[in-house]
Amino acid sequence: MRKVSICLTPELLPLHGEISERIVIIIDIFRATSTIISALANGVSAIKPVLSVDECLANKQEGYLTAGERKGIKIPEFDLGNSPLAYLNRTFEGRKVALTTTNGTVAIGKSKNASEILIGSFLNISTLCKYLSNQSNDVLLLCAGWKGRFSLEDTVFAGAVADRLMGQLELDGDDALAAHTLFKAAKFNLSQFLGNCSHANRLKHLSLENDLQYCLRQDEYKILAKVEDGIIQTVKL
Amino acid sequence: MRKVSICLTPELLPLHGEISERIVIIIDIFRATSTIISALANGVSAIKPVLSVDECLANKQEGYLTAGERKGIKIPEFDLGNSPLAYLNRTFEGRKVALTTTNGTVAIGKSKNASEILIGSFLNISTLCKYLSNQSNDVLLLCAGWKGRFSLEDTVFAGAVADRLMGQLELDGDDALAAHTLFKAAKFNLSQFLGNCSHANRLKHLSLENDLQYCLRQDEYKILAKVEDGIIQTVKL
Repeated sequence: MRKVSICLTPELLPLHGEISERIVIIIDIFRATSTIISALANGVSAIKPVLSVDECLANKQEGYLTAGERKGIKIPEFDLGNSPLAYLNRTFEGRKVALTTTNGTVAIGKSKNASEILIGSFLNISTLCKYLSNQSNDVLLLCAGWKGRFSLEDTVFAGAVADRLMGQLELDGDDALAAHTLFKAAKFNLSQFLGNCSHANRLKHLSLENDLQYCLRQDEYKILAKVEDGIIQTVKL
Repeated sequence: MRKVSICLTPELLPLHGEISERIVIIIDIFRATSTIISALANGVSAIKPVLSVDECLANKQEGYLTAGERKGIKIPEFDLGNSPLAYLNRTFEGRKVALTTTNGTVAIGKSKNASEILIGSFLNISTLCKYLSNQSNDVLLLCAGWKGRFSLEDTVFAGAVADRLMGQLELDGDDALAAHTLFKAAKFNLSQFLGNCSHANRLKHLSLENDLQYCLRQDEYKILAKVEDGIIQTVKL
């Protein structure tokens, strides 16, 4: 039976063994992966995840919009921050975006040896899970966390994906069991359960409650997003 | 308000900041910390946690019994394995034990800068929590995990301690919130909840179910155990 594992933070990824024959799902619910899905679903043609502010700015000359944050705050010289709401109404249709964030882009960088790298968010959870259940490789759900530490919202999302794949895929490891249990505790009121997690408090403090609520909406979009050759794009299904 | 944090595996300890003014509780439920509490409560005078098999054997000349395991299995040339049941009925009263285990002794080694290092197990949970609530330093619950990875039984125990300290101490971080949620999901039937975790399966495979059940008994003993100058002993209360 295929397996689904969950890595609670990128710091622990080396302990999860070889990933070259596994599909890795990048999870940074508040907000990088939610923002990526929102941007692509609203017509952005490509997103280039980059690690540094300078690398991001260097892409401006090639026609990229610059987007990202440090500690949740927009970088002053950038065009955009890290809000999924900025892309609504197809405001940036046809544009390319270079994105750097505190945790999400780091997790993408560490997954480069995976057989396939996909972007996970509540906004496209059903499309993602349907795709995963039709593949043949094992699945590793990689929580981006917060500066290497565990984060509750990413883990609960991983548990939600595990929940949908159960039956077809076997939960592998205590981390997967824990994430699934946390999802079951959270599922009847996600926003209340996650409202007290440390990242939610950080974002509320920055008056980003609308972002939070948006990131928890399920199935706003029916797209699948894949990282290939360092670029994230929508996959034709 | 004092804080209680939870570190999910020793690999993540460097991300938890300075520990020199915090009390660190070492947690390795299956089985090192349960074995330590059982041994001391049954009259063993001192336990020296050591990292390697050779270091353990070197202590034999100083009158130590040698105890420990690798991958759950007793080391052939040792006097004892890592079972808490071996010490019952005061079989080794007055003896000293050198102990090396896969995870627990590693976690002790990484905590050496803490203001105080205590041993946590269900077997002495009430005595431990009562002591902690009367101190002034913050508390860090350190789960020993399994070879650096997350383990469910250690996290659930950390959640149980957090649950008892709430009100007096503030839960700090998403890892603490998650552990507390897992404990609440587990508490009405600990052995069923933990019966499917990976370490329980490992031990069942080795016919160590009696050990498992014993490690989940609450308040068998009213002792507190502390690591000082590399030696674990009972603290007079």
